[in-house]
Amino acid sequence: MTERNIQVSELDRRAVEDQRVEIVERKGIGHPDSICDGIAESVSRALSQAYLDRVGKVLHYNTDETQLVAGSAAPAFGGGEVVEPIYVLIVGRATKEYEGTHVPVDTIALGAARDYLAEHVPMLDYGTDVVVDVKLGQGSGDLVEVFGEEGATVPMANDTSYGVGHAPLTETERIVLDAEERLNGEYAADNPEIGADVKIMGKREGDRIDVTVAAAMIDAHVEDLDDYDDAVRGVEEFVAGVAREHTDREVGVEVNTADDYDDGSIYLTVTGTSAEMGDDGSVGRGNRANGLITPNRPMSMEATSGKNPVNHIGKIYNLLSTGIAESVVDEVDGIRDLQVRLLSQIGRPIDRPHVADAQVVTEADVDVGDIEADVRAIVDGELADVTNVTRRVIEGETRTF
Amino acid sequence: MTERNIQVSELDRRAVEDQRVEIVERKGIGHPDSICDGIAESVSRALSQAYLDRVGKVLHYNTDETQLVAGSAAPAFGGGEVVEPIYVLIVGRATKEYEGTHVPVDTIALGAARDYLAEHVPMLDYGTDVVVDVKLGQGSGDLVEVFGEEGATVPMANDTSYGVGHAPLTETERIVLDAEERLNGEYAADNPEIGADVKIMGKREGDRIDVTVAAAMIDAHVEDLDDYDDAVRGVEEFVAGVAREHTDREVGVEVNTADDYDDGSIYLTVTGTSAEMGDDGSVGRGNRANGLITPNRPMSMEATSGKNPVNHIGKIYNLLSTGIAESVVDEVDGIRDLQVRLLSQIGRPIDRPHVADAQVVTEADVDVGDIEADVRAIVDGELADVTNVTRRVIEGETRTF
Amino acid sequence: MTERNIQVSELDRRAVEDQRVEIVERKGIGHPDSICDGIAESVSRALSQAYLDRVGKVLHYNTDETQLVAGSAAPAFGGGEVVEPIYVLIVGRATKEYEGTHVPVDTIALGAARDYLAEHVPMLDYGTDVVVDVKLGQGSGDLVEVFGEEGATVPMANDTSYGVGHAPLTETERIVLDAEERLNGEYAADNPEIGADVKIMGKREGDRIDVTVAAAMIDAHVEDLDDYDDAVRGVEEFVAGVAREHTDREVGVEVNTADDYDDGSIYLTVTGTSAEMGDDGSVGRGNRANGLITPNRPMSMEATSGKNPVNHIGKIYNLLSTGIAESVVDEVDGIRDLQVRLLSQIGRPIDRPHVADAQVVTEADVDVGDIEADVRAIVDGELADVTNVTRRVIEGETRTF
Amino acid sequence: MTERNIQVSELDRRAVEDQRVEIVERKGIGHPDSICDGIAESVSRALSQAYLDRVGKVLHYNTDETQLVAGSAAPAFGGGEVVEPIYVLIVGRATKEYEGTHVPVDTIALGAARDYLAEHVPMLDYGTDVVVDVKLGQGSGDLVEVFGEEGATVPMANDTSYGVGHAPLTETERIVLDAEERLNGEYAADNPEIGADVKIMGKREGDRIDVTVAAAMIDAHVEDLDDYDDAVRGVEEFVAGVAREHTDREVGVEVNTADDYDDGSIYLTVTGTSAEMGDDGSVGRGNRANGLITPNRPMSMEATSGKNPVNHIGKIYNLLSTGIAESVVDEVDGIRDLQVRLLSQIGRPIDRPHVADAQVVTEADVDVGDIEADVRAIVDGELADVTNVTRRVIEGETRTF
Repeated sequence: MTERNIQVSELDRRAVEDQRVEIVERKGIGHPDSICDGIAESVSRALSQAYLDRVGKVLHYNTDETQLVAGSAAPAFGGGEVVEPIYVLIVGRATKEYEGTHVPVDTIALGAARDYLAEHVPMLDYGTDVVVDVKLGQGSGDLVEVFGEEGATVPMANDTSYGVGHAPLTETERIVLDAEERLNGEYAADNPEIGADVKIMGKREGDRIDVTVAAAMIDAHVEDLDDYDDAVRGVEEFVAGVAREHTDREVGVEVNTADDYDDGSIYLTVTGTSAEMGDDGSVGRGNRANGLITPNRPMSMEATSGKNPVNHIGKIYNLLSTGIAESVVDEVDGIRDLQVRLLSQIGRPIDRPHVADAQVVTEADVDVGDIEADVRAIVDGELADVTNVTRRVIEGETRTF
Repeated sequence: MTERNIQVSELDRRAVEDQRVEIVERKGIGHPDSICDGIAESVSRALSQAYLDRVGKVLHYNTDETQLVAGSAAPAFGGGEVVEPIYVLIVGRATKEYEGTHVPVDTIALGAARDYLAEHVPMLDYGTDVVVDVKLGQGSGDLVEVFGEEGATVPMANDTSYGVGHAPLTETERIVLDAEERLNGEYAADNPEIGADVKIMGKREGDRIDVTVAAAMIDAHVEDLDDYDDAVRGVEEFVAGVAREHTDREVGVEVNTADDYDDGSIYLTVTGTSAEMGDDGSVGRGNRANGLITPNRPMSMEATSGKNPVNHIGKIYNLLSTGIAESVVDEVDGIRDLQVRLLSQIGRPIDRPHVADAQVVTEADVDVGDIEADVRAIVDGELADVTNVTRRVIEGETRTF
Repeated sequence: MTERNIQVSELDRRAVEDQRVEIVERKGIGHPDSICDGIAESVSRALSQAYLDRVGKVLHYNTDETQLVAGSAAPAFGGGEVVEPIYVLIVGRATKEYEGTHVPVDTIALGAARDYLAEHVPMLDYGTDVVVDVKLGQGSGDLVEVFGEEGATVPMANDTSYGVGHAPLTETERIVLDAEERLNGEYAADNPEIGADVKIMGKREGDRIDVTVAAAMIDAHVEDLDDYDDAVRGVEEFVAGVAREHTDREVGVEVNTADDYDDGSIYLTVTGTSAEMGDDGSVGRGNRANGLITPNRPMSMEATSGKNPVNHIGKIYNLLSTGIAESVVDEVDGIRDLQVRLLSQIGRPIDRPHVADAQVVTEADVDVGDIEADVRAIVDGELADVTNVTRRVIEGETRTF
Repeated sequence: MTERNIQVSELDRRAVEDQRVEIVERKGIGHPDSICDGIAESVSRALSQAYLDRVGKVLHYNTDETQLVAGSAAPAFGGGEVVEPIYVLIVGRATKEYEGTHVPVDTIALGAARDYLAEHVPMLDYGTDVVVDVKLGQGSGDLVEVFGEEGATVPMANDTSYGVGHAPLTETERIVLDAEERLNGEYAADNPEIGADVKIMGKREGDRIDVTVAAAMIDAHVEDLDDYDDAVRGVEEFVAGVAREHTDREVGVEVNTADDYDDGSIYLTVTGTSAEMGDDGSVGRGNRANGLITPNRPMSMEATSGKNPVNHIGKIYNLLSTGIAESVVDEVDGIRDLQVRLLSQIGRPIDRPHVADAQVVTEADVDVGDIEADVRAIVDGELADVTNVTRRVIEGETRTF
């Protein structure tokens, strides 16, 4: 019998899928906020790995505050240029020395950011289109202590915090998430004109889903306005196709609705991100840990990206609650909507939350009592295996934004 | 008969007051995230005012990205010192010239930040404890256009965005909000040892409310550990008193629970904010527009502070939906919980949202149909008066965090 | 008998006073380069004093690299405004901890800069017209060692370096130096329109001295072009009067020669320094240690301002050679021109230079042999008293630019 | 007959070659000050070229203020690492728009700096070992005007300034210059352990020349202390060989004299420059326009690197006077030492200096009168061809440091 405080109850609302109006948003990987999330998380992974390599354990750090200051650019059909560079400041603190071993956290952070940008926003020429600087403090003397031996015991919560996760995704959520990922994946591979900064908003009213896409086009691959229009149509068709894979509802797709061809006002960029021209970004201002912004669901304000995955409870509980929700839905039938909340208590082992709260909307023919034991067992097992979250984050297997 | 798309319906959940578990948080005015919110909003107000004074209308700007990099400090009973300054970077874009008139947006922004800090975190010695710098771009050429003549027509939405507001506050919400405000008000006036960085978390389980306060104490006003303990007890009693004004439920208050007197690990600061030592901050990472973080309620991710209040729909709709919810509850009886959502559509006048959605939980003896017309009328009136939100923001009458 | 390697010989050139063409320049206290020199030296003094106060000795530091990035401004008769702030970056390294005592070198440096600017360029509103930031490294581990016990032994030279000093000043040199100092002193006290950024060039051809003054006028104290012209005339007359105190030669004075009243192109500023508009500055780019730039004389490239005065040989030997030259000329008659060079050798006590070289141009009726012993004795005495240079620098009694 | 004010006269001192004590210094290409000079000049060349390419003429700019803030590093035999990056700030102003054509001066400057570092300090990993940022202002409205049509007329002097040049180099000067260039050339090609930061001081007393070399060794190519010692000996022998090519005087060479093998205190670096650990740098603090620091000769304080070569008189006259001196000595026999000074007058064409002053020390059997006409003719011709200096600078054919 478990000692964990796990509560399973009925969720006192309709499943989101059954609500009348649903709004879902995803800022794609090249959106300024997502760039910050991505850099912050890549810096975090690089630091964790460096600590493991050099001292055998992850030391105190927190790098969840990257700030991006937009540049300015002069896009032009066939290829324009960045005029003023994007400026990125990596902010946080990290342990620089441990028992005589120095860890070059600044250069590690810069290297991680450079590698991340090269992979995910490859049109940005490093050092001219974007300047990345770093300010990592040493942090509080009190906190500069060891954060978990490798393979060792469960750490204590460092804060009173909570995490919340959901499953399964609604159709609208799946469309928004899948469309962005595939635009930045298979579609971009074949269509080099599409930039990494794709922002998708899905709105469902009853059985009508409208998907609005803002997609930054890369000028070097767009010859003229006709070409641009073709690019827009291409995205439209592709997203409509993706949507049809996820729903039988009526779907409308609109791409770059703010364009005005007569004015020549179109979403053309040099580098494929609006960060080149006027759009600043920060960590934690965009997608939540499950990759989406979902005003129909409770969300945590906590930024997940960039935080230390060993004992930063805000990060761990957001990821864990999402993981639990997904596991439960995978393994237990009859659940139409599930919300898992984890609330920590400072100083308590993180596998023993103050409360773990699983609330379900069951299918019509299922009663909460029918599945309660199964749900409880899964929650219990995942909590027991909490350090697995840490491992997966360090190995880059877990989405944080 | 109105042309606005206003929908009034029953909210398909229990009132938050009636839910079993409720979590509420507020980051006080001296918290690093709140400092950023406060600076960003004061910069915004100063720019709006400067534009009105100089060119008679508010020009394009957006300053919702202040980044704070923590300093380091050596607090000591009786008075320590800041070792490395806090660094604050004001980020955004603002129109620097309009029809031949130059507006010194950089120096205006710096002046606003300096004045704000002097008033709200007065222990920070400007220029040594904190360095403030500014990077304001000129922004997109397309967007550098006029944003609303004074006293004139309703602008068009600049984005597809939404806002959400609630009323009335629950007991727990009121306790958390009121406790922070009064600690930083009347209590601080009599007890100079309390810093501006007060973070309060309220957790209600059934009829038990636990209030956890983290209050940065100012070392110059704390002679020794006994004195510190007295200060902690003082806060505890004061918050307990505030709570009793708002509820008959059982209340527990804990202050600075992470302290360990034996280790000498206490929450002592030089300047009254954790920004002096390791806690970075950003705009939009803390309180929502109503001053609270409320995971039990839908929240918008949109940062409200620092945005242009003339046509930045993310800001306006968050403030307006909150305002509408409060007005409705003030004027219409029988509402136990009300949630107002406003969804914009790019290019549509902002007083004509795509949908304005008021969902209510009524008192047991009230039916939605009984109050629908009243609610609709109030929503309609507030939407018609949308430019009032702008005016109130510019005059500093509206909370944004 | 001394063990010091002191050489006294005849200088193989005419006295500068007797050369046909002589050029002399002084960048006044408000010139961007001088602002950097002044800040760097004030930071240095503040650090020395802080080290003495806290650990009883001056620890390793070097702060000779302040960089000023010009702002932009919109001056206007009656009072204009700064548009983009001047940015000042204090650069260097300083010991941050010594045997458990922390020294807050960053905040000390910022405080010193703020105080310096308030006193010497008072029109600059701190925090809006000028932003000052600091980057002080910890420096090489090898070098973070004690730099001289108070009142203790002579340190070793840290470098192979040299210093050079001269005396007496020529008439042209005295005019240039005195004019700048008195413009920024008695004249400014009575004429608030004159800014601190006064740059004076003196050129003598035979017996004709031309003094060219560039004087930044402060717009708040200048009503119109007539008023400006009066201000220019006032400076002209004042400088002519100063010149007449120093010479019987023919003197011409020109002020703000680049002005073009027809074009409205005049030297009007908001803050009294060209740093507000386009003129950047650095340490060591302007006046040498004696306050002048004298291409007719050998000069050291070494920046004097900002360096540690305890064992930074470049600083000490420039100041000491100047001091020696002045002492010799004060005490020994018959010297028309004197040049003192000190060359250090790494690792040798600084009171034992590799060579101390006094070269003289004697009056017609005096032979070097007549004064050699006296000169040698003074050089020897000043070298023996080398730590006095350190003391005087720390107490702010010595000019460094 | 020329209208130029050219004066040829006897120099009233001994040739530097004949003076008893001579000091010469060169900061090698990898020295922090030289890195700044090199970046500033490469930025200047890139801007000139970009202006010519885009608008057909060089527009106003000045980029002579690059600031380098040292990093920190942990060198180790076989290969260490940079811990904190070097920070380089490119400072200045440049015209960003001309008659509707935008010139991306910021990204051009960053690109030039990146290319320069890659070529000259190749061990510095861009973006991790060194972060380069840029602050280029728009500059004074008055000065944002065209600076010389291509192939067109001689511009007016922008300032009262002077330049000074010398020829021929003394033996000591040639040794110092040649040694550094060949260490960074042929020697480095064969000996990868030598870094670009080589600092050479030559001191001649009578007929004894002592050459002191400080050479940063690159740890990845140094296995152990023996290996290091071999590297030091290699430099010693090489420099001694270079010296013997230039002089028959007695020569002593010492390399890395501050090393202490017992303490393990040696000049080992990761990247081959002391900028990685504690040595900051600025433009104009090191070598003069002829590549040397020569306290025995008059020097201009003016920074040559980074300035606009079209009408920045400080740059042009320093380069031109050096060029004239070299031409005269090449073409006219009987000159033992020559000093050329050019003094500008604001608003006068730069080929018409206020005075051009050639002072010579002739060989024993030559009289100034014998060569005056030849000297005058060469000076006149070079002045007439002043725009050639501009062309050569833009094409990178002229040394500036």
